[in-house]
Amino acid sequence: MKITDIKNPLFLKDLSIKEMETLAEEIRLFLLEKISKTGGHLSSNLGVVELTLAIHYVFNAPKDKLLFDVGHQSYIHKILTGRAKDMDKMRHFDGISGFQKRIESEYDCFEAGHSSTALASALGFATARDLRKSDEEVVAIVGDSSLVSGLSLEALNQIGEQKRKLVIIFNDNEMSISKPVGALDASFSHLRSSSQYNDLKGSIKSMLKKNPNGDAIIETIHNIKESLKNTIIDSGIFKEFAIDYIGPIDGHDLKSLIRAMETAKAKSGPVVIHCLTKKGKGYKYTENDATGKWHGVGPFDIETGEFKSSTPAGYLSYSKIIANAVEKEMANNDMIVAITPAMKSGSGMNELFANYPERCFDVGIAEDMALSYAAGLALGGIHPFVCVYSSFLQRAYDQLNQEICRMNLPCLIGVDRAGLVGEDGETHHGVFDISFLRPLPNMVIAEGKDASEMEALVHFGINYPGPFAIRYPRGSIPYQKNDIFPEIVLGKWEMVINNDNEDATLFAYGQSVECFRELIANNNLLINLVNCRFIKPIDKELLLNIANRNKPMYLYTDDIIKGGLGDEMLEALADNNCNAKLKVFGIDDVFVKHGSISRLKESLGLDYMHVINMIRGDLDA
Amino acid sequence: MKITDIKNPLFLKDLSIKEMETLAEEIRLFLLEKISKTGGHLSSNLGVVELTLAIHYVFNAPKDKLLFDVGHQSYIHKILTGRAKDMDKMRHFDGISGFQKRIESEYDCFEAGHSSTALASALGFATARDLRKSDEEVVAIVGDSSLVSGLSLEALNQIGEQKRKLVIIFNDNEMSISKPVGALDASFSHLRSSSQYNDLKGSIKSMLKKNPNGDAIIETIHNIKESLKNTIIDSGIFKEFAIDYIGPIDGHDLKSLIRAMETAKAKSGPVVIHCLTKKGKGYKYTENDATGKWHGVGPFDIETGEFKSSTPAGYLSYSKIIANAVEKEMANNDMIVAITPAMKSGSGMNELFANYPERCFDVGIAEDMALSYAAGLALGGIHPFVCVYSSFLQRAYDQLNQEICRMNLPCLIGVDRAGLVGEDGETHHGVFDISFLRPLPNMVIAEGKDASEMEALVHFGINYPGPFAIRYPRGSIPYQKNDIFPEIVLGKWEMVINNDNEDATLFAYGQSVECFRELIANNNLLINLVNCRFIKPIDKELLLNIANRNKPMYLYTDDIIKGGLGDEMLEALADNNCNAKLKVFGIDDVFVKHGSISRLKESLGLDYMHVINMIRGDLDA
Repeated sequence: MKITDIKNPLFLKDLSIKEMETLAEEIRLFLLEKISKTGGHLSSNLGVVELTLAIHYVFNAPKDKLLFDVGHQSYIHKILTGRAKDMDKMRHFDGISGFQKRIESEYDCFEAGHSSTALASALGFATARDLRKSDEEVVAIVGDSSLVSGLSLEALNQIGEQKRKLVIIFNDNEMSISKPVGALDASFSHLRSSSQYNDLKGSIKSMLKKNPNGDAIIETIHNIKESLKNTIIDSGIFKEFAIDYIGPIDGHDLKSLIRAMETAKAKSGPVVIHCLTKKGKGYKYTENDATGKWHGVGPFDIETGEFKSSTPAGYLSYSKIIANAVEKEMANNDMIVAITPAMKSGSGMNELFANYPERCFDVGIAEDMALSYAAGLALGGIHPFVCVYSSFLQRAYDQLNQEICRMNLPCLIGVDRAGLVGEDGETHHGVFDISFLRPLPNMVIAEGKDASEMEALVHFGINYPGPFAIRYPRGSIPYQKNDIFPEIVLGKWEMVINNDNEDATLFAYGQSVECFRELIANNNLLINLVNCRFIKPIDKELLLNIANRNKPMYLYTDDIIKGGLGDEMLEALADNNCNAKLKVFGIDDVFVKHGSISRLKESLGLDYMHVINMIRGDLDA
Repeated sequence: MKITDIKNPLFLKDLSIKEMETLAEEIRLFLLEKISKTGGHLSSNLGVVELTLAIHYVFNAPKDKLLFDVGHQSYIHKILTGRAKDMDKMRHFDGISGFQKRIESEYDCFEAGHSSTALASALGFATARDLRKSDEEVVAIVGDSSLVSGLSLEALNQIGEQKRKLVIIFNDNEMSISKPVGALDASFSHLRSSSQYNDLKGSIKSMLKKNPNGDAIIETIHNIKESLKNTIIDSGIFKEFAIDYIGPIDGHDLKSLIRAMETAKAKSGPVVIHCLTKKGKGYKYTENDATGKWHGVGPFDIETGEFKSSTPAGYLSYSKIIANAVEKEMANNDMIVAITPAMKSGSGMNELFANYPERCFDVGIAEDMALSYAAGLALGGIHPFVCVYSSFLQRAYDQLNQEICRMNLPCLIGVDRAGLVGEDGETHHGVFDISFLRPLPNMVIAEGKDASEMEALVHFGINYPGPFAIRYPRGSIPYQKNDIFPEIVLGKWEMVINNDNEDATLFAYGQSVECFRELIANNNLLINLVNCRFIKPIDKELLLNIANRNKPMYLYTDDIIKGGLGDEMLEALADNNCNAKLKVFGIDDVFVKHGSISRLKESLGLDYMHVINMIRGDLDA
């Protein structure tokens, strides 16, 4: 059967184990072929091929509900539910999403993108089922890093309490985006190592079954077995949550997987199946990936394992520019530390961690804990740098408010992946952070227009005695080391173009500033340009000076308009009774889908040339 | 020694156990006397008298760092550190705070207010100490409900990983604001019941010590003991986190407490001391409190246990009005459920839970989980009502964004304690929620001006097919059951006063509307009044109509200005090129301290008469 001919998972039910094993290999080749072209999450999907086949073999979707935590590992599920043919355009503007998506398929009952939500939502599905007196199965598939996040542990606590029928597939690949962290991983190791015991138990049992007095012996040793089982097998974290446990089992052995899932399905309460999988299985480069660089990939060459769109020579990612700037500060000051919630590699911090192991902390997927930890460090006299993707920073919102800002603690917050991020789509765009950080008293928000301004802001921010958020986008830019930095004064903007006889003024921040400078220069426009490098506090003096010239004013932002810099400027204008008008180009009150950043900007009316033309039209009218 | 004469805890070191026991009784009487007048957290403090004495006996604050989780149980700590004399004015505008507060005392190294931050921050303090190569002790005091919150569990995971010296006092009173929930509580029960074993072990050991061959016997049985210990004593959750465990011990027995703390202090890594305490110990009403009504109290009569400021006859709290309105909807629709994160009593939901046990869920202190759970329920065809205090809703911010709003799921969010809350102060004022909810696409935000409008909004909201936040303030109002409700149309405001020849228009929402109506009427002012019952979406048509009349416009809000309704209105005015001016009265970019709501409003220039006078002055100028 051709992979692209698969319409739904029903055909699986008629396959033998052998045939499914063959299918697994075909799917692996298909995944490699597709992802090598589109990019996406390769390793995680290669690791769950047999797991996903077994799930669709044992359970009956779409009646039964399958919740893939995060959803980046749902490609095989997409293939089995008729979407293989769409994978050429996965993550494209007009293609399918890289996560579960309800509008794509009735087999997708759930959507995520951020980690650790599946267990709580699965309990919601199970509760809804019980209230509706229905009988579908609810299955949550959760990785080891997601499982130790607070949200998952809170859900386990309720799952154990409510005791509803629910199957939890614990996909333990011992290797998440970064290496697993935390003491619980040792607890999992203990469980992992007990597989030998399980095998032994099985052998003894089957041996005894063949013996005429076997059953009686089995009965006799029941208590001893239970006791042993409690200390050796079930003594993991799941027992504390009063949840049944099956495992650990080989997550690539279809027979074991199917047997375990059928056992779980027969139970009347919640049960965890602990599956040991190998992330990246079946492809030499992903199998041997120690740093996580194969977690989320761009297009690559299957033969050589070389990334096609890897950063060109002379280019550096913003993440790396910031991490390097922080490293420079750490070299000069022992009282600076760096913290990441499981994004060491993504945030360009691998070298930072290697060079300063005593002062770098990966706290796992626990953004809230990262900021509470930072608060304690700051109170203890240390200046923490906490680096969090913009969209994940939402998870630390209470800590930012009540701990960092309320106590006005020195803390440099690296807001990585700020603005549109492209192919990861709705759940990953970092377009909300200005809106949610701006209302917090004491919070400073800044974004540099280029590398040297970013570096200067890091230097300023790590020496600032309060909360300081520095935003920087996804992507790379041509980089040259330099020692000349712009002067940074808190709340001061920069006039990038300053004509006395301007037709209008355009305000912008971040990398759009330089793009607009070029466009304005190349088109010989009389538009003044302001680099709003501080989004809070703003440069009221400059703003009011410009407003008093009574020329049209425009603001460009590729973030959400509501609550953003535009609001801050409108407030200042209203407070000062200005008649000047400000028009804001930005993201309206919508979630932005996936696609390349340029394609997305186009669709939002936010590509730079379009904006310039709009302003021209306005001025001509 | 007079309690009010205590300057610092040094004197404790010279007391005998007997003398400390006497002091404990004196402190209990003092607490009762003071809190019966000021109100505050009574039960929790009565429960930790001996615990706090032991801490200050064993540890050397302020060098050693004491972090009380939440901080509502730090009254004895305040007494021992010289603040007994200030307790008459605790929680008053010009008095000390009801939580730990750095500006009050060098003994307060930490501040909280929201739960479960102490462990992560304590690890921060410990890390800072190690980096500074200093040697102070770090002690975190955490209750059982706080401990099972995700943030605490994430911190335990890191504490077990980093293995720094750190003492965790687990204050297990088996009874938090509401009853403890979740499967982990059963795990704790298991630990609790093992105290007998501990006693036994102690007795056997001391008996053997007296025997000439005792040491040898002790040695011989070491392995058996260890094995037993693992299954009976240490098999709790702490073992999974690789943290040493001492306990459980009687939290009112000073000798045991001191011995345990000294043992913990001698260890080189993290250790948990499991203390069993009785919440409300020493006062008959608090000891027998089954519902949590003695958790946070107003002034009361010590003899009779009657609350002095209890809700007058005919009054009902907004929380209860909303809960009752939800109950009415649940009676008519089996597919509605109610969820609280550990605030059943505070949110007026006791009867709701009693009447609909199958459809009411207390998920413990886990706001994020509450909203993820709600998302699953909504996806499963159920309409959830999730009731969260405004300031705690920050903890579910990512779930509100990426799950509830992004998927546009039907969910009625009760934003309890919205606006200023008074005596609980900075960490509890619900003044940020408009600012952080408004940028979220699909989110509706509403607030009724009185009880019947609130009820109508509940009816509208629970039938609305997307996320709907209804805000309501702390406090009670005269209530009469009625069957006449205002007509609610999404995004439509109400003209409460509508003159054709007005001097100005005042926009307001919530309970301020009726106050302004009275003031305007009583003072014969020609000010029109608009009830902005929808904060998002706003009534643009009405706003622009009014703006086009070119009279001054004013907005009153007792929430943070930045990101609030004012910004929404300014955006609409700018989008439509209006020249009309809007002046906003609201909370500037600051955290508001504690005190009575009226006193706070006065200090912020937000008392209603003052605002009316400001408008008058403006119009006269």
